[in-house]
Amino acid sequence: MGRRLCAAGRTTRLSGGIQAVSRIDWKELYSTVGAGLKPSPIRELMKYTRQPGMISFAGGNPDPAIFPVAEFGRASTILTERGREVLQYGATDGFAPLKEYIAQWMAPRMGRVTAPEEMLISTGSQQVMDLLCSALVDAGDYVIVEEPTYPGSIHTMRNHSVSFLTCPCDEEGMVVDAIPGLIERARKEGKKVKFIYTIVNFHNPAGVTLSVERRRKLLEIASKEGILIFEDDPYGHLRYDGDHLPTIFSMDNEGLVLFACSFSKILAPGTRVAWSVGDRELIRSLVMVKQGVDLCTSVVAQGLVYEYCRQGNLEGFLPKIVAHYGRKRDAMAAAFEKHLPADVRFVKPEGGFFFWLTLPGVDTKELFFKAIERNVAFVTGTSFFPSGKGGEENLRSCFTFASTEEIDEGARRLAQAIADLKG
Amino acid sequence: MGRRLCAAGRTTRLSGGIQAVSRIDWKELYSTVGAGLKPSPIRELMKYTRQPGMISFAGGNPDPAIFPVAEFGRASTILTERGREVLQYGATDGFAPLKEYIAQWMAPRMGRVTAPEEMLISTGSQQVMDLLCSALVDAGDYVIVEEPTYPGSIHTMRNHSVSFLTCPCDEEGMVVDAIPGLIERARKEGKKVKFIYTIVNFHNPAGVTLSVERRRKLLEIASKEGILIFEDDPYGHLRYDGDHLPTIFSMDNEGLVLFACSFSKILAPGTRVAWSVGDRELIRSLVMVKQGVDLCTSVVAQGLVYEYCRQGNLEGFLPKIVAHYGRKRDAMAAAFEKHLPADVRFVKPEGGFFFWLTLPGVDTKELFFKAIERNVAFVTGTSFFPSGKGGEENLRSCFTFASTEEIDEGARRLAQAIADLKG
Repeated sequence: MGRRLCAAGRTTRLSGGIQAVSRIDWKELYSTVGAGLKPSPIRELMKYTRQPGMISFAGGNPDPAIFPVAEFGRASTILTERGREVLQYGATDGFAPLKEYIAQWMAPRMGRVTAPEEMLISTGSQQVMDLLCSALVDAGDYVIVEEPTYPGSIHTMRNHSVSFLTCPCDEEGMVVDAIPGLIERARKEGKKVKFIYTIVNFHNPAGVTLSVERRRKLLEIASKEGILIFEDDPYGHLRYDGDHLPTIFSMDNEGLVLFACSFSKILAPGTRVAWSVGDRELIRSLVMVKQGVDLCTSVVAQGLVYEYCRQGNLEGFLPKIVAHYGRKRDAMAAAFEKHLPADVRFVKPEGGFFFWLTLPGVDTKELFFKAIERNVAFVTGTSFFPSGKGGEENLRSCFTFASTEEIDEGARRLAQAIADLKG
Repeated sequence: MGRRLCAAGRTTRLSGGIQAVSRIDWKELYSTVGAGLKPSPIRELMKYTRQPGMISFAGGNPDPAIFPVAEFGRASTILTERGREVLQYGATDGFAPLKEYIAQWMAPRMGRVTAPEEMLISTGSQQVMDLLCSALVDAGDYVIVEEPTYPGSIHTMRNHSVSFLTCPCDEEGMVVDAIPGLIERARKEGKKVKFIYTIVNFHNPAGVTLSVERRRKLLEIASKEGILIFEDDPYGHLRYDGDHLPTIFSMDNEGLVLFACSFSKILAPGTRVAWSVGDRELIRSLVMVKQGVDLCTSVVAQGLVYEYCRQGNLEGFLPKIVAHYGRKRDAMAAAFEKHLPADVRFVKPEGGFFFWLTLPGVDTKELFFKAIERNVAFVTGTSFFPSGKGGEENLRSCFTFASTEEIDEGARRLAQAIADLKG
């Protein structure tokens, strides 16, 4: 195709050598958001964690050793059996059979079988936050977030110039009693809080779970103020002790909750298939935003996830990862008890991926580099504070990625790093 | 898992019946963008095209009959052979082996082998426009677009509150001589044009191709003004007559061009895998925005596309679709010559998906509903005009989706609809 002109093009370019520095002064062209872009702090720290022999409690990656590779491979039958369907453009709200499967499978958690008009399939849960910000947030609008909270969501909200109102967390999760005061503060400024963002189960990074009592209170506040609750629940299925708590979505019958869940932690993140359910009008708006974002989530990926589920693999896989990660959670708790100084505090999470450690008198930023010298990595506490202040004596430790042996050795190295810092 | 509490949740909900009307007044919460959201005009028209017996020249979908279903299915070996890699989170800039393949394969068009730091894999080309707007556009900033232009891009830019400066198109594509005047107009308002958006080959909807002469002129203007050119080229490989023209990217050595291409039209849109190349700093910024949008494009989808290419299918498939769509293009040209009134004007496109018809004295919005009665569909011209004015006597007719028999019959029905309207 077009050999002559292409060859000509190539010659020209070769004589010209590789691309010169841009004639464009990007600072002249950047938007406020573009000018303020910073790489994700975690991804920056990850650079240091790639050296050989490193034991990483950093990242938040699932354990690839337990990925259902063979089962997912068998789902590829859909690529030939329904090839023309999954290779074509799909509906923006998602692949209908997958939506139907999720609605049925999630009914016990949602409290009912949600309607297709209440559900949106997205390219990871990250995208739901992005779509929601487009639909609700003008630059400078307030969103109430937990402190600490998931940095990926901070990043997304920064892309939309969100102003943060931060609510502390304790052992019972978000301290919801602080919320009315935050809403009042916004009101005094003549501004409205657009939504309340909470990671309800096995919080990233705090590891805590929002109590039923507080879920009720949060719902009451949202109802009284007419504010949306964004209930982010990527870890909800991964409970290793105790009983599941009802979702805020299932406690609500006033359309106050956007509930987001994902296949990233219960199947595999490489699929980038997630879903959310909420009020029909809100979902309709998110779908319209999504038309201009990526038209639809990869139908090929959705088809594979659907077929994997249809073949009955999800139901079988969940107890397996719950047992697998539960063992790792126990291993990390034991290793921290065994190796870390007595004054280091943490709550053993009932599920999820993370321990949140408090190290009195230790600057975890300084500790990070000592830890890297000892070949163990974690994420510094400050990374999880949108205000940029707080968490100086905290760190997040992920127990899903490392092996149980590495977990014990990593905890030992972490103790050494603490000693290095103090001594 | 958590049967007791879930059951309780379910009972509550059932007693409460299905979701009530939201307590939230969404108008109170919507952003400027959210409040202005409208469904894509084309998707709205598509509703009418679903009746039985409808021949659709509307949509812009590839022909599923030619999807390489078997070949793509064979690429699924990567799901087991590299399962742990493609099921894990991937790099935000894309799956490295796929980037490397594209850099080599596209070298003749790019004029050189681009570096990994110059390339971004995105969830469809649609996403590149979204990321670019986040990085460059503050509400109200100017972007220069062709009129007519691709409504999907208008939709994306509206999501970012872009102000449009429109440049007409003729048989040689964008009338670039009009651009300095538009830039001057922005300057007089104390504003800067952030980028110039052009669909260079087999324009959607106009079917025209930007001449080499104009590509050079456009590059000179961009260089003089320090403005980015967004060279959107989803159809470039689908040329049915004549020789390929050099990409603007390959003519540039000043980092002035962001070039976007996609697997949607040359493999299948359901993959949602596209790529763009541009100045390193710009790509770095787009990657940082993307971290907050979807973390990364489905690694599963990227892996499948890579394996499909690695097995040599892309090179073999291209001549096949070029021949297939070339025949359909010829069939539609012949059918329009045969059936349509003599005063209907169109340029036979040298490639791509679309004919752009001018019907003197005919309001194509009125014609649309007459056509639906005759069971043939197209897209009205006004849908492609961001200013909302213009194209009243135009329509876009896609020749890739319908069979050659349907194309002839559809043209006959369209002629009848025109007669219905005039009679």
